[in-house]
Amino acid sequence: MISQLEIISVGNELLIGKTVNTNATWLAKRATSMGIFVKRITVVSDEISEISKIINETLRRKTRFIITTGGLGPTFDDKTLEGIANALNGKLEVNRKALQMVREKYRAYARTGKIEKAELTAPRLKMATLPKGSEPIRNPLGTAPGVIVNVEDSVLIALPGVPPEMEAIFDESIAPLLKKETGQVTFFETSVYADNIMESSLAPLIDKTMQDNPFIYIKSHPRSEERKPHLEIHFSTTAKSSKTAKSNIHRAVSLLSELIKENSGKVRLKKEEDQPS
Amino acid sequence: MISQLEIISVGNELLIGKTVNTNATWLAKRATSMGIFVKRITVVSDEISEISKIINETLRRKTRFIITTGGLGPTFDDKTLEGIANALNGKLEVNRKALQMVREKYRAYARTGKIEKAELTAPRLKMATLPKGSEPIRNPLGTAPGVIVNVEDSVLIALPGVPPEMEAIFDESIAPLLKKETGQVTFFETSVYADNIMESSLAPLIDKTMQDNPFIYIKSHPRSEERKPHLEIHFSTTAKSSKTAKSNIHRAVSLLSELIKENSGKVRLKKEEDQPS
Repeated sequence: MISQLEIISVGNELLIGKTVNTNATWLAKRATSMGIFVKRITVVSDEISEISKIINETLRRKTRFIITTGGLGPTFDDKTLEGIANALNGKLEVNRKALQMVREKYRAYARTGKIEKAELTAPRLKMATLPKGSEPIRNPLGTAPGVIVNVEDSVLIALPGVPPEMEAIFDESIAPLLKKETGQVTFFETSVYADNIMESSLAPLIDKTMQDNPFIYIKSHPRSEERKPHLEIHFSTTAKSSKTAKSNIHRAVSLLSELIKENSGKVRLKKEEDQPS
Repeated sequence: MISQLEIISVGNELLIGKTVNTNATWLAKRATSMGIFVKRITVVSDEISEISKIINETLRRKTRFIITTGGLGPTFDDKTLEGIANALNGKLEVNRKALQMVREKYRAYARTGKIEKAELTAPRLKMATLPKGSEPIRNPLGTAPGVIVNVEDSVLIALPGVPPEMEAIFDESIAPLLKKETGQVTFFETSVYADNIMESSLAPLIDKTMQDNPFIYIKSHPRSEERKPHLEIHFSTTAKSSKTAKSNIHRAVSLLSELIKENSGKVRLKKEEDQPS
């Protein structure tokens, strides 16, 4: 059974269309490449009730991994940890390890003249106030630590919304965790490009190719280059070795290419065939 | 009571991190500008069960508007309409109006030599097969019509995933519907940039400004330009007239700017102050 992940993106800026959710895409790509199946991505607002509602939903779905992004900072609208605490019926409390992490950051800022005083004001203390039973995760770049808490069979992870910080914590502390879970599973993908064939004519050919290649997922995407419509055909698979993954994909690409040519379509392997590789 | 919208993005390509969900951002921005409150964005896979599950969830939440994107095309993995039909306990049936729309498209393609035969193959007929009780919406650019269906107090709208088609249908047929619902409500937003102040020191100042300006939502975002950290402070509001919206925002910006300066921070109104406007 492949392990599932749900991503929860917290932030009003995502819901008013001010910010594109590149954090979710980045996480989804990285997790998929490790053989984790991303089941859902949900964007919710900065309200405590909304955050705790979605956390409860994901826990009820027995999702193995839940990663939230956003809402860990010092400002009044950083409410992810309150939302998580609410969902777990637990309390927030100052975490000793987290406090040490935050204190050291501000001492370093004061030493380098970035701020005047290293004192732990209420907003700074807030970043060390975690749901009861959770652990802080080192933030190699910023001030707010990540947070991890085990809830029955689920692992709930809260990461900051600032992309470089989110990525740094993921790479340092979360990726090893996911890799340990999946072992040696590899995700592999490739695309070919088809012209001179409508998507509606391609559909039954993809169907046949997938029937003959049960481990391969194929999806066509209409694209246009300089107003000339054509199709991208995306192949993906997961396997125990990258050799198997590649050879499985190769077989499917060959079969579908043959079928397309038989139907007077054209297939090219690169995006722009006139461009030297 | 402000009308709520949930956006459902259907597509495995979003869950494996191949595609950034710009459709959701585009829709969120447009709906927000019309005074609609985007409550949630959910990304699900192309599986019928996943689609029908999230449709049921949004209906149970009594969401006024539900917009799905993706999964309306002719291929086997375009399953949004099957998912919707499942959720509504209804059946799929060939819709006469939709059939006419699809037929005319393929006749036009055949006339212009884009395809050989205009015949309605199974994959093409699929695009005219809608959940019972729904209506097709004209697609000014592509083949697959949009779909609209009223379910109790909710309006469920299915749009294609190809961005120009999604946007064209939205602008032509959905925007008028949303505007009719909200009347003369305007959304207004602006940002100022602060330096020489930490986010943890800014937090209580934002708090005070929001207390004094109840209609304004303020959120700070850590940014960095050429490795120099600074903060973007985003102000947004909704009001019955754009004049009211602007003057409310202006008042909040002035107050917060004063508070920041009192705390030895610097405020600038533009992203790059050295750039001539």
